[in-house]
Amino acid sequence: MKAIAVEPGGGEPVVVERPRPEPAPGEALVRTLRVGVDGTDHEVIAGNHGKPPEGEDQLILGHEAVGVVDDPNDTDLEAGQYVVPTVRRPPNGTNEYFDRGEADMAPDGEYLERGIVGAHGFMSEYFTSPAADLVPIDESLAHLGFLIEPISISEKAIEHAVASRSAFEWEPESATVLGNGSLGLITLAMFEHVLEIDRNYCLGRRDRPDPTIDLIDELGATYVDSRETPVAAIPADYEGMDLVYEATGYARHAVETVDALAPNGVGVLLGVPEPWEFEFDGGQLHRELVLHNKALLGTVNSNRGHFESAIDSLSQLPEWFTDDFVTGVYSLDSFHEAFNTGDDVIKTAVEFDRV
Amino acid sequence: MKAIAVEPGGGEPVVVERPRPEPAPGEALVRTLRVGVDGTDHEVIAGNHGKPPEGEDQLILGHEAVGVVDDPNDTDLEAGQYVVPTVRRPPNGTNEYFDRGEADMAPDGEYLERGIVGAHGFMSEYFTSPAADLVPIDESLAHLGFLIEPISISEKAIEHAVASRSAFEWEPESATVLGNGSLGLITLAMFEHVLEIDRNYCLGRRDRPDPTIDLIDELGATYVDSRETPVAAIPADYEGMDLVYEATGYARHAVETVDALAPNGVGVLLGVPEPWEFEFDGGQLHRELVLHNKALLGTVNSNRGHFESAIDSLSQLPEWFTDDFVTGVYSLDSFHEAFNTGDDVIKTAVEFDRV
Repeated sequence: MKAIAVEPGGGEPVVVERPRPEPAPGEALVRTLRVGVDGTDHEVIAGNHGKPPEGEDQLILGHEAVGVVDDPNDTDLEAGQYVVPTVRRPPNGTNEYFDRGEADMAPDGEYLERGIVGAHGFMSEYFTSPAADLVPIDESLAHLGFLIEPISISEKAIEHAVASRSAFEWEPESATVLGNGSLGLITLAMFEHVLEIDRNYCLGRRDRPDPTIDLIDELGATYVDSRETPVAAIPADYEGMDLVYEATGYARHAVETVDALAPNGVGVLLGVPEPWEFEFDGGQLHRELVLHNKALLGTVNSNRGHFESAIDSLSQLPEWFTDDFVTGVYSLDSFHEAFNTGDDVIKTAVEFDRV
Repeated sequence: MKAIAVEPGGGEPVVVERPRPEPAPGEALVRTLRVGVDGTDHEVIAGNHGKPPEGEDQLILGHEAVGVVDDPNDTDLEAGQYVVPTVRRPPNGTNEYFDRGEADMAPDGEYLERGIVGAHGFMSEYFTSPAADLVPIDESLAHLGFLIEPISISEKAIEHAVASRSAFEWEPESATVLGNGSLGLITLAMFEHVLEIDRNYCLGRRDRPDPTIDLIDELGATYVDSRETPVAAIPADYEGMDLVYEATGYARHAVETVDALAPNGVGVLLGVPEPWEFEFDGGQLHRELVLHNKALLGTVNSNRGHFESAIDSLSQLPEWFTDDFVTGVYSLDSFHEAFNTGDDVIKTAVEFDRV
């Protein structure tokens, strides 16, 4: 079968030939339909994040997949069922985090990530997976099933943010997404259409006309140009935020988020920056957190429960949004197009087989 | 009646004569027994925090009180009942935060604080209070009732920390208190005897022999000398912490707390520093929060529910601890002693009437 693999840090992804995998007991064989591309894939390609399986030079890419069960192999799944695979797998047998369905909370060394860290991804014509890590999705949503993984990341972030404010009455009325990349934009759509937060903002650093700013406008949210309004100035220029969702990976945004929050607000961080020393007012950060009961959380990855919530959320997003959001789905022949970046690209996927 | 008042920033506290207050409808008249002294009182005296009631120069001090109901004034309280007053009051009538019992979450301008911000405190022979803000305490604990307010501060901090970790299974096994002041030490005792956390640490910067280090030892906790082990080095020298409780007001500790945490850990901040610009690795802070699902929360003040929990917690602290912890209770004649600081002072109170 054909697969898309890369030698991390050693060039562009290429199509390789691999044997079709055989499902082990408890695993199903899945025929791949579509696999999304995101910033993590670019980090893996550049060699900045992740690694191939032990002893191999190449990694099959892809962690945002949807497929159809080809061989249930005596699992509870049925042939023809549409499924979305979760990403983390235990490195040796299992461990307590996987046992209780909290793979997303496993610390370093207690997990592999398919398509990212130490395990092949889903960019191949077929893949196998334990049935427990395959989440059924309705046929009507299957063509967008590659959006479930990124949505699940935000499901987890929102769940943790809400939990952190659960000791008191907290009903967010204002929210800002930092970053108008694909994760930021789909989260903004969730804020509007799933959480139904009253006033939403999205921060970027681009000029109109721009397709992401158009999406922000069409969602009914407010575009904040970070060149005019730094994150810390958001309350002065707009209003204090009950919720800030950071998806820029820019470390100054992490600390400035505290200033952007309204009293009792929460900032949830998802970006992964490199080390970077800079000067900032730590006294102000500390004081603001304390005197105004603020919270700052980091979250990474997501678990099966978040994938299930994500399917529900996807069903609530308007069709016009997903139509505009997905800017390209490319067949294996032209898969390189899916890895192109540029201001006209929002979200892309590689199609291995027609949905 | 006699009261202890200060002109903030204008000198030492003095004994003043004031009319005995008359309870308004819904208020009871309380005869004051003991009122504790803490760092906030010293901040108020220095003029760094808080202010007298509108139009007055002097503020009656004291926010950690216990008293006995003198005149229930048709409220549900009974004469002779021991009570502890909460601290916050609404500035004009009431507001939504007070209505739902969450005065501690009220933003600036929506609260006064007795003995601190805009309202007289409890360091007077009598005080009045709405009955709803008086929390009954058993006679057997009344002599220590001035510890309920500081314990309630930690009840809230712990409640918020636990809530922030409630989206997954979290059972803290290791905890560090940053700071061996009175709030830090009583929280350490709560970690040992109420939360029953396995391994507790307390950070300070003093040499043995020292009464606070003796208390840390006697509690079975480990003393961490910050001159040898900076906060960020705690995992290397000891272990990563599931819970960090900051009570130093030192802004570098706020950011270093993230490094001190184990994966999935939470740091709760209580200190109130002044603005202070410094250089630090914001990339590392951001990355650690995200990749290891860490949380950093600030909390301030406490509500009636936290006072009720605090009474329960106080009943679980061993008598030897409170005996050693309270280093002095002084009558009105020698009240200045209660405001002395020094390495042999841990917790003091002024006694207005015998318990």
